[in-house]
Amino acid sequence: MAQPRADPGGPLLGARLPHLLYGGDYNPEQWPESVWEEDVRLMREAGVNLVSMGIFGWARLEPRAGQFDFGWLDRILDLLHAGGISADLATATASPPPWLSRAHPEMLPELADGVRLWTGARQHYCPSSPIYRDGARRLVEALADRYASHPALAMWHIGNEYGCHVPACWCDISAADFRRWLQTRYGTLEALNAAWGTDFWSQHYSDWEEILPPRRTPTWPNPGQSLDFQRFSSDALLECYKIEHAVLVKHTPGVPITTNFMRFFKPLDYWKWAAHEDIVSNDSYPDPNDPEAGWLAAMDGDLMRSLGGGRPWVQMEQSPNRVNWRPVNAAKRPGQMRLWSLQAVARGADGILFFQWRQSRAGAEKFHSAMVPHGPVDSSPTWRAVVELGADLKRLDAVCGSRVPAEVAILFDWESWWALELPSKPSTELELLDQVQAYYRHLYEANVAVDFVHPEADLGGYRLVLAPNLYLLSDVAAAGLERFVQAGGMLVMSFFSGIVDPADRIRLGGYPAPFREMLGLRIDDFLPLVTGETIGIHSESLGRGQGTVWSETIEPEGAEVLASYSGGDLDGRPAVTRQDFGRGAAFYIGTRLDSTTMGRLLRRAWVDAGVKPVLSAPAGVEAVRRVNAAGTSHLFLLNHGDTEVELEGTPGLLDILTGRRLAGSRIKLGPRQVAVLEEPR
Amino acid sequence: MAQPRADPGGPLLGARLPHLLYGGDYNPEQWPESVWEEDVRLMREAGVNLVSMGIFGWARLEPRAGQFDFGWLDRILDLLHAGGISADLATATASPPPWLSRAHPEMLPELADGVRLWTGARQHYCPSSPIYRDGARRLVEALADRYASHPALAMWHIGNEYGCHVPACWCDISAADFRRWLQTRYGTLEALNAAWGTDFWSQHYSDWEEILPPRRTPTWPNPGQSLDFQRFSSDALLECYKIEHAVLVKHTPGVPITTNFMRFFKPLDYWKWAAHEDIVSNDSYPDPNDPEAGWLAAMDGDLMRSLGGGRPWVQMEQSPNRVNWRPVNAAKRPGQMRLWSLQAVARGADGILFFQWRQSRAGAEKFHSAMVPHGPVDSSPTWRAVVELGADLKRLDAVCGSRVPAEVAILFDWESWWALELPSKPSTELELLDQVQAYYRHLYEANVAVDFVHPEADLGGYRLVLAPNLYLLSDVAAAGLERFVQAGGMLVMSFFSGIVDPADRIRLGGYPAPFREMLGLRIDDFLPLVTGETIGIHSESLGRGQGTVWSETIEPEGAEVLASYSGGDLDGRPAVTRQDFGRGAAFYIGTRLDSTTMGRLLRRAWVDAGVKPVLSAPAGVEAVRRVNAAGTSHLFLLNHGDTEVELEGTPGLLDILTGRRLAGSRIKLGPRQVAVLEEPR
Amino acid sequence: MAQPRADPGGPLLGARLPHLLYGGDYNPEQWPESVWEEDVRLMREAGVNLVSMGIFGWARLEPRAGQFDFGWLDRILDLLHAGGISADLATATASPPPWLSRAHPEMLPELADGVRLWTGARQHYCPSSPIYRDGARRLVEALADRYASHPALAMWHIGNEYGCHVPACWCDISAADFRRWLQTRYGTLEALNAAWGTDFWSQHYSDWEEILPPRRTPTWPNPGQSLDFQRFSSDALLECYKIEHAVLVKHTPGVPITTNFMRFFKPLDYWKWAAHEDIVSNDSYPDPNDPEAGWLAAMDGDLMRSLGGGRPWVQMEQSPNRVNWRPVNAAKRPGQMRLWSLQAVARGADGILFFQWRQSRAGAEKFHSAMVPHGPVDSSPTWRAVVELGADLKRLDAVCGSRVPAEVAILFDWESWWALELPSKPSTELELLDQVQAYYRHLYEANVAVDFVHPEADLGGYRLVLAPNLYLLSDVAAAGLERFVQAGGMLVMSFFSGIVDPADRIRLGGYPAPFREMLGLRIDDFLPLVTGETIGIHSESLGRGQGTVWSETIEPEGAEVLASYSGGDLDGRPAVTRQDFGRGAAFYIGTRLDSTTMGRLLRRAWVDAGVKPVLSAPAGVEAVRRVNAAGTSHLFLLNHGDTEVELEGTPGLLDILTGRRLAGSRIKLGPRQVAVLEEPR
Repeated sequence: MAQPRADPGGPLLGARLPHLLYGGDYNPEQWPESVWEEDVRLMREAGVNLVSMGIFGWARLEPRAGQFDFGWLDRILDLLHAGGISADLATATASPPPWLSRAHPEMLPELADGVRLWTGARQHYCPSSPIYRDGARRLVEALADRYASHPALAMWHIGNEYGCHVPACWCDISAADFRRWLQTRYGTLEALNAAWGTDFWSQHYSDWEEILPPRRTPTWPNPGQSLDFQRFSSDALLECYKIEHAVLVKHTPGVPITTNFMRFFKPLDYWKWAAHEDIVSNDSYPDPNDPEAGWLAAMDGDLMRSLGGGRPWVQMEQSPNRVNWRPVNAAKRPGQMRLWSLQAVARGADGILFFQWRQSRAGAEKFHSAMVPHGPVDSSPTWRAVVELGADLKRLDAVCGSRVPAEVAILFDWESWWALELPSKPSTELELLDQVQAYYRHLYEANVAVDFVHPEADLGGYRLVLAPNLYLLSDVAAAGLERFVQAGGMLVMSFFSGIVDPADRIRLGGYPAPFREMLGLRIDDFLPLVTGETIGIHSESLGRGQGTVWSETIEPEGAEVLASYSGGDLDGRPAVTRQDFGRGAAFYIGTRLDSTTMGRLLRRAWVDAGVKPVLSAPAGVEAVRRVNAAGTSHLFLLNHGDTEVELEGTPGLLDILTGRRLAGSRIKLGPRQVAVLEEPR
Repeated sequence: MAQPRADPGGPLLGARLPHLLYGGDYNPEQWPESVWEEDVRLMREAGVNLVSMGIFGWARLEPRAGQFDFGWLDRILDLLHAGGISADLATATASPPPWLSRAHPEMLPELADGVRLWTGARQHYCPSSPIYRDGARRLVEALADRYASHPALAMWHIGNEYGCHVPACWCDISAADFRRWLQTRYGTLEALNAAWGTDFWSQHYSDWEEILPPRRTPTWPNPGQSLDFQRFSSDALLECYKIEHAVLVKHTPGVPITTNFMRFFKPLDYWKWAAHEDIVSNDSYPDPNDPEAGWLAAMDGDLMRSLGGGRPWVQMEQSPNRVNWRPVNAAKRPGQMRLWSLQAVARGADGILFFQWRQSRAGAEKFHSAMVPHGPVDSSPTWRAVVELGADLKRLDAVCGSRVPAEVAILFDWESWWALELPSKPSTELELLDQVQAYYRHLYEANVAVDFVHPEADLGGYRLVLAPNLYLLSDVAAAGLERFVQAGGMLVMSFFSGIVDPADRIRLGGYPAPFREMLGLRIDDFLPLVTGETIGIHSESLGRGQGTVWSETIEPEGAEVLASYSGGDLDGRPAVTRQDFGRGAAFYIGTRLDSTTMGRLLRRAWVDAGVKPVLSAPAGVEAVRRVNAAGTSHLFLLNHGDTEVELEGTPGLLDILTGRRLAGSRIKLGPRQVAVLEEPR
Repeated sequence: MAQPRADPGGPLLGARLPHLLYGGDYNPEQWPESVWEEDVRLMREAGVNLVSMGIFGWARLEPRAGQFDFGWLDRILDLLHAGGISADLATATASPPPWLSRAHPEMLPELADGVRLWTGARQHYCPSSPIYRDGARRLVEALADRYASHPALAMWHIGNEYGCHVPACWCDISAADFRRWLQTRYGTLEALNAAWGTDFWSQHYSDWEEILPPRRTPTWPNPGQSLDFQRFSSDALLECYKIEHAVLVKHTPGVPITTNFMRFFKPLDYWKWAAHEDIVSNDSYPDPNDPEAGWLAAMDGDLMRSLGGGRPWVQMEQSPNRVNWRPVNAAKRPGQMRLWSLQAVARGADGILFFQWRQSRAGAEKFHSAMVPHGPVDSSPTWRAVVELGADLKRLDAVCGSRVPAEVAILFDWESWWALELPSKPSTELELLDQVQAYYRHLYEANVAVDFVHPEADLGGYRLVLAPNLYLLSDVAAAGLERFVQAGGMLVMSFFSGIVDPADRIRLGGYPAPFREMLGLRIDDFLPLVTGETIGIHSESLGRGQGTVWSETIEPEGAEVLASYSGGDLDGRPAVTRQDFGRGAAFYIGTRLDSTTMGRLLRRAWVDAGVKPVLSAPAGVEAVRRVNAAGTSHLFLLNHGDTEVELEGTPGLLDILTGRRLAGSRIKLGPRQVAVLEEPR
């Protein structure tokens, strides 16, 4: 998953659709057929070449058990094909029809406190339900059978936003499935008892049937049980996906398959999921009111590219303008939708799609903006932006299939995330994404390209590896990290790493047991800080700063002290250390550094490691480079600011968005404007 | 419902009780009979002429299924009658006795998440329960039969505060009743599917039995389903009321019937309810700690008068002093209880009653103040105030039956309220009552009389109509509003009006579709503002101001721009417009204006419309005029401030509260003091 | 329970263990037996002489129904005994094993809203469950039978932190048990109806079977029902305790029995519980981040001593350093663990134990600090502090069995606490502990010793009695209090006392009915203040101050006014009064005084009463005196501050912690340092 594979590149769907993909979710069943012709006409006007069809179509495709009605889908697919538009055909299983849950209420999910979730919205199914799984399989069989050779079919879209509302279920059916999963994982009951430490609080199990999901309990349930339930819940939904996947592979072996991810979505281990996808796709809804939205979206894009091992991915959903599900739903500012769309392309996306094509007239999402608004199209600023973006993407076809090279890796693992944020820790203020973001934003601001990698992945291709927090890790991962540094890699690791094994059991022998030698230190105690509390930091090389969230008593056993605490009971004790190890070196950070100090430290680390930023650019300007198999690269320059900026550029380079070459050495970018410069090999 | 009907006027209960009504809830069953004689003596001392009896008497009237015990009620009714006090006799069905729910636990209500509400407090019944309805009907039959000709009976009081704690139920019995209600409303399943837009999220129903109340769902349930469930829930409780009503009408055709409303109570559509009442009555509990309480109570009074089509109404409950159900229960300040009581009379009330007569010794309301306190009566300031108010009301008998004329109407509709505040809107900060109050307070402060009217009502009698928000409205209402302006009326309408039809489906064709021609504009997009965000407003005629909560892109199509946005992405675009239409004109407001600007705009509108305030008075002085059938009017002047004020008055007018005539042209009013000037025809 | 009993004194466990007790919870079952020998070696190094064993051992002691496995417990008890360490042997019933709840799910507890609490954590049992009770009894029989004559057995530890997570259960089994309890309490249904005031809200019961626990109801359930349910729930858990107690007394009549309390734990009436214990013990977890933690812990200690009638008690659990269950878990500062441990000894503890001996490797408490940490012992500051404390305690053996004399009593009653904090009061801002603390902190700061006493206790031995709030009290308590003042005692009482009888029914006749004569006043009305609201206080003797939370209209009927309100509607009315009564006097306080004014008032009261502080010491220095049967006393001086302080001392006194005698008249105490001076008779 680390470095871009030597890979032919080229368009994501190959000859089937040799362009950047452009379109959106299309729900023609919500409209009279009389509207469909206008839809196709407008799609062509906007440059749409792909639409996601039938995501919530089950109740219309199978209005009664076993009675299928494909007529309407036949007609619209033919119409699309005639218009030159391809289909990303959904398996329509995201929301079961009312007749299914009425006939089998035991398929409805239950929360930890026994509350049942009912029909009336969407996604009301227990992931372990055989009723749901069989019903979904039958529907997908029928769909795949019917449309396997339809010329509009370009791609399959399994389910939709798996786990979005119901990431887990605590019902009796899930309990039985959980036990089966545990039997597979542990083999014997004694292995499970040992892993979960059930001698604590009299929890020893004498029979598999005694084991339950972590339902509502008098106080915290067993952490091992909770962690395994998160693993199981991700796997239970993945099993739903795999059942449909198997049907599709059988019927249409060549058609690429995806399901849409949701950024850093905690409940699903996307590393495991992505391994079963041909194309990784993402739903992206940054808040226009959030000043951090721009770089957070960049981070999402880097994750999606990383999940696919560097391959191009698809922005499967974004909003043309306002959403409807925040308390207050701000509109996108002029140019913002285009900016964020091209940012996704910069970070490796080869497709930009929206939710949705035509704004619904009824239902819970009728105030979610769409490519085609409720009112007249002609005067709609949203529609104009959609048409312009279509034209832009046509001009960018040259980037199809190209990759984003990176020399830096951030270690990221869902299992450790789950374990870290279970309750009864030294501090609940310690959250993984906050830690990751505290690293990422400095790389982003300096235009240093970065991949996310699994801790057990091969780190060989990177110069610098960052470990914002690795609370839980396997022996394999620990050994790999040590090997990486031994071999000359540079590592930056933060506090509360290496604490537990994959069963969330303490690694004894002094924290952080697996890294004590590499880091050259020992932690005697954790001293978390309360909200608002700070601790002074002093350093010759990094200056004065402060820490929040965490402090600890670091006992150096060889490490050089880069920064110390000042004031308080830890006065003069180490806060940041560094140790040469093998041919590499490892930094260790014992608190949550303020942003300035963190930035200085990271810069020192990447300079030491020989990492080169893409570009030195004014604040607010994002620079990303995509390189194709032939060695041609495209430099994306995106101005996230509200004012015009000027950058240095190489005279003569072609901006493929405008078709103009740089006259001099200055590039001007207006607010939220973008340039894409072609750099020959 | 609009203008006062030409109506004989006179006392509310006619010859039966030819006075303003005065009294309170009386629960003699909580006290030994030895206390009853003292009660009657004290009632006479206080001028009480009507008490509400038996509201929570079911368990005492029917201690076991079918075994009635009326002896105690006979005795106290006789005692009251002998003392010259009439009874507002309750049907005693507000809280079923423990034996009923023990025998039939299925009559207990269930919440959306399946939690059952148990016996132990009050109102623990599913509104659709046949067990409850039959039990209530049998009790009311027995009561009405026994007391039909009792001389103390002056009025019937059905139930109590319907829906206060249990406005809806999600149990299986309610589900079945909801389906019956839907079948009546829609006739066919396809009509329901179309209304609810069930093609969205695979919600299409193929059988009535699949339909459920909007129970706990993975995310928002269908908005059409939610809206209809609110309609159904109001109707289900109204059905309970109507069952009892039918019994009473049969037994005592001449005795007026009421049930006590609760101000702007969202769950019940009081327009539909009031149509089944002879007298509208209200429970009023303004918070003495709330500086807005005074004018909010005025608004409640205007609503009650409007619900009764202008007829006098009854303040059925208020507290003599402190309540017990707020987190902190402030006492009423000296004079405040009298002030608010006389305010209700000013706004059309012909009766002032309290909860309750004698303060309970036990139970959940023992710290709710009462007319007779726990301690000695003689030294109680509360008791003294009660006695004084009784004397005041005697002096005001002349206003019995008179009306409050108004030239301004505020459109108000429960269905639109429900729909507006369903989730998944552009902004959850937009709340109907906030919008209504933002209009009302300016009319109140300027002493401009106002009625509330249903959007489908005849608007013919008004000069100015205000539409703070009409998110949902019918074609009939839209046409009526257009007719009103065409015919010379003045309209002020705020943003997000005319958006959906009664099924909460978007009215296509550009917002606000039904009013685009009348308003002379089109809205291209909504740009809600986050909490604390403001947008500048500039206007030649209204000055500089600002907007909050909302903004939008208004595209004028003929309208004159009265105010524009300044700064931001909407700089220079219209914020407030006006268009002549037919013989009238329509203002449109695209944001939540700051109060000063809103006041200026409304003043302009009512001046343009020729509306005349009752009086120009100093700040804090409320002035209301009641006019009787003979043309005599009474001008109520109420000083809500903490300091004395001076007003202009016509020399020689009689203040019927003091019995003194104005010597000069100045009227002095001390803090929280009131004058009632009689103005001959 | 008031004054120390004339009692031989001496060590808590007598000849069995003639020392201050030192140790902690020991859970050897969580570790391989290979670790046990090291455990015993380290215990000896630390001076440990007592460990609590098997608290969560049920699942290991009885891995299947009726199959006991005592082998491991035999081995470790033998090992401990060989090492000279005694056992506080737990009955192991705190957490039932999974097989029990799987076989009998009806033993799981249910919340008021019907949510079931499941197996997976601990304490998942319905207190009324016959399944649980029988299972526990069988286990305790087996344990007691096996270990009755084991030489390591020094003490029994029944259950653990009763009610900590599940203080009450609302299931059908609990409902039936509640009805049985009510039948015992009331005898007849009419007595219950009268006590609960069921004529209110139609709640009259006609059959015992109609009565339910106060489950989720539409609004507040009946207060009498709620109060009795709190009484019942405390008794239901006490019944569990008593069942085990009876078994132990039968098998080992001479071995002392305890269960660990949890400070001022609201759900359990510890007065009733303590009557069934030989030794009172406490779990103490003050928050190192809370600047009030020091004096609050002193208050806890005084309660524990008082619960035992003045006898020495045991600090059964405290943390060596950080806990794991707060959102952020601060570490103890250097010296803080020792300071708080010796504070407990000062306030009468004869034993200091920790949770727990060896820090867990797995489970929900693995980040709770322990005497033996995860990492190396040698370098651990926590371990060093544990060893030092062991040495300190050895030096303090002379205090074994001595008492803490007090001349002041604070009245404290769980039943009144429960009733006061039921909903629907004048103000929810009024909380009992806040009131008690507002008194206690002044006594603490002035080093005035104080006991807590039940309102019905004999007050004869005290000079001053404080009644921060006695909302509910019995006639016996009211008469006792009056007798106390009559006989020359001094009383200080705060507002909202004497309001209701034990059934939470108003005491009629003017508030506070039972004390009007003694206090010489009457309250006409309560005027609670909202959050942040203040009311001015003016007094010749107490100066200017202010009140919060509460005010009221006090009508003096003989009392002298000590302070009046200034400003507002109560301007000039009494705020604090005093009246001579018999040979004593009674102060009354009508608001929550600011701390300075409260301090002045209390000082006046204790000076008037002739109460003598232990010592006049600098701020932050706590001084407590323990006196043994022979009349020798030990003066504990504890510096809670961060800087060194100097005190006056008697030259020549021996500091038994250091073994040195005072050279001059000055004692220096560094931050968090302690001296214990032996004062010969």
